[in-house]
Amino acid sequence: MSPNSKADRPGEYEMIARYFAPLAHEGAFNLKDDAALLSLAQDRQLVITHDSLLEGIHFLPDDPRDTVAKKALRVNLSDLFAKGAEPHSYSLSLGLPDEWDERDIELFAKGLAEDQEHFDTRLTGGDTYRSPHGLCIGIAMFGSVPTDGYVSRLTAEPGEVIAVSGTIGNGALGLDVRQGRLDLVAEANDWLADRYRIPQPLPAYAAIVREFASASMDISDGLLGDLAKLCSASGLGATVERTALPLSEASKSAIDMDPKLWERVLGGGDDYEILFTVPSDRFELCQEAARAIDATITAIGKTHAGPAGEVTLQLDGKPVPVSASSWSHF
Amino acid sequence: MSPNSKADRPGEYEMIARYFAPLAHEGAFNLKDDAALLSLAQDRQLVITHDSLLEGIHFLPDDPRDTVAKKALRVNLSDLFAKGAEPHSYSLSLGLPDEWDERDIELFAKGLAEDQEHFDTRLTGGDTYRSPHGLCIGIAMFGSVPTDGYVSRLTAEPGEVIAVSGTIGNGALGLDVRQGRLDLVAEANDWLADRYRIPQPLPAYAAIVREFASASMDISDGLLGDLAKLCSASGLGATVERTALPLSEASKSAIDMDPKLWERVLGGGDDYEILFTVPSDRFELCQEAARAIDATITAIGKTHAGPAGEVTLQLDGKPVPVSASSWSHF
Repeated sequence: MSPNSKADRPGEYEMIARYFAPLAHEGAFNLKDDAALLSLAQDRQLVITHDSLLEGIHFLPDDPRDTVAKKALRVNLSDLFAKGAEPHSYSLSLGLPDEWDERDIELFAKGLAEDQEHFDTRLTGGDTYRSPHGLCIGIAMFGSVPTDGYVSRLTAEPGEVIAVSGTIGNGALGLDVRQGRLDLVAEANDWLADRYRIPQPLPAYAAIVREFASASMDISDGLLGDLAKLCSASGLGATVERTALPLSEASKSAIDMDPKLWERVLGGGDDYEILFTVPSDRFELCQEAARAIDATITAIGKTHAGPAGEVTLQLDGKPVPVSASSWSHF
Repeated sequence: MSPNSKADRPGEYEMIARYFAPLAHEGAFNLKDDAALLSLAQDRQLVITHDSLLEGIHFLPDDPRDTVAKKALRVNLSDLFAKGAEPHSYSLSLGLPDEWDERDIELFAKGLAEDQEHFDTRLTGGDTYRSPHGLCIGIAMFGSVPTDGYVSRLTAEPGEVIAVSGTIGNGALGLDVRQGRLDLVAEANDWLADRYRIPQPLPAYAAIVREFASASMDISDGLLGDLAKLCSASGLGATVERTALPLSEASKSAIDMDPKLWERVLGGGDDYEILFTVPSDRFELCQEAARAIDATITAIGKTHAGPAGEVTLQLDGKPVPVSASSWSHF
């Protein structure tokens, strides 16, 4: 409630006009109004996600401003793609630390601008406010699906293939690198840290999800915990084979060094890959569709009728205990 | 990044199921999915607002949990009504302090539930996270207008009546009461403090705005500063007559005691009334429409061609200086 204890930077009005108005969607009145006005084509439905990032909780205080901006967009984009949705636009509620100056804001806006271009989305508006205890970024993201194209978590069936996109565990191990708990060769360290800082959701998965997935979600809180949520929502159990899990070279080298890191891979979170179920007889086609866009989809287990949300981890077909549970955000 | 330093309360999953799922919109999959799926009628357009409230910035740490929840909804509802929009649903990103226990969450959800009922809106989803330095509430709100019914700030014309709803200054003076800078009789103190805690946006104004306003916004950052924004966006100047400003009895008694409080009334913010422009020959009809719903609309000045955003305050027709500028949120 003391408006002016802040570093050298333009006022709210100036700052919005200079750095954020160029990012505005056509329905956003150049960010001169209190709201945005959007229309979708008649054969599309609106999909909404809303995830916030708070400094010290979802990113590290010394993460670069532009990568933090990208992460804030990408955790929401990841949700959209996992639902089979294409991005439309997003709204930004931005809590700025007092010590941020104009260069910080410029770099943050540059991160947004680059990802807007890359992912084809625009800013509809939002608000800014003082956040004395660290940057707080709230993003509500708006996407669309063809009518009846939305894929929820609630509709998996027994006996389906459980599939994941890409490789698992990079984000969690990247955080370990960033916080000094893990040290590999420099190249692997950098690659993992980068995966923590900038998730890599792939827009082309939206169409694959719509075509093949019976249920789908993105992995943000850890593979096994998130799979338990999907199974719980669908009223099913699941079995996952650990030897089937797709790992990056960097993650493999970390686990070779310390097999206890399996727990981080299985439960650490920050993957932003897609976890979905596919009818068995459709899985090969699904994999082909992924290969056609230079993406990888891997079968890691099966759903079954059984206690809702119960996930069994197997190693070479035998159950093994898991001590890592899902990441909780508070 | 330490998930479990928190007071005695249910886990994220439990908490959502127990307190927030009952608030869910039908497109929200009972809050079991990562996103919400919405459809609007074909003759409606989507209106989006997004305002956050942070403890210590937008509300006081000892404000009751339920009134804070209501304020978070109402600052967004106020934006919708000022645009001529009806509420549809909202998304909530909730940063919870470590010390919040189950009772805090229950009271917060009760505040949401009461206002959902009162304003006819439902929760679409969102996220929760740890916010160690105080409650942070991000609300993205979704409303709708009939096609071409949206009213922006950008379209006022010269020579129009400037009108406000209700009375001005109560929120700012209520904050003064809450922080011990202002002390009136107990009843006035309570009434003003209540106005600070719980804004009173009136849904019926949406239709009046659509029918009569050429431009419109809600007053959140102070009357004169917000009028300057409207005039700037519309490329106009404006004159406001101070003697015409509608004040509550409590505000009048405060100003009688200390005329310097005019600055708080003119620039203090937290009004959440509607500021709009009306063609002169339509203003009487507009007032009648307000009276018909037991609401008050007051003419406080006129727009004119002239330097964009220049607002002149007059007292009995003579210009007076204003030292209070608009409230800045950082």
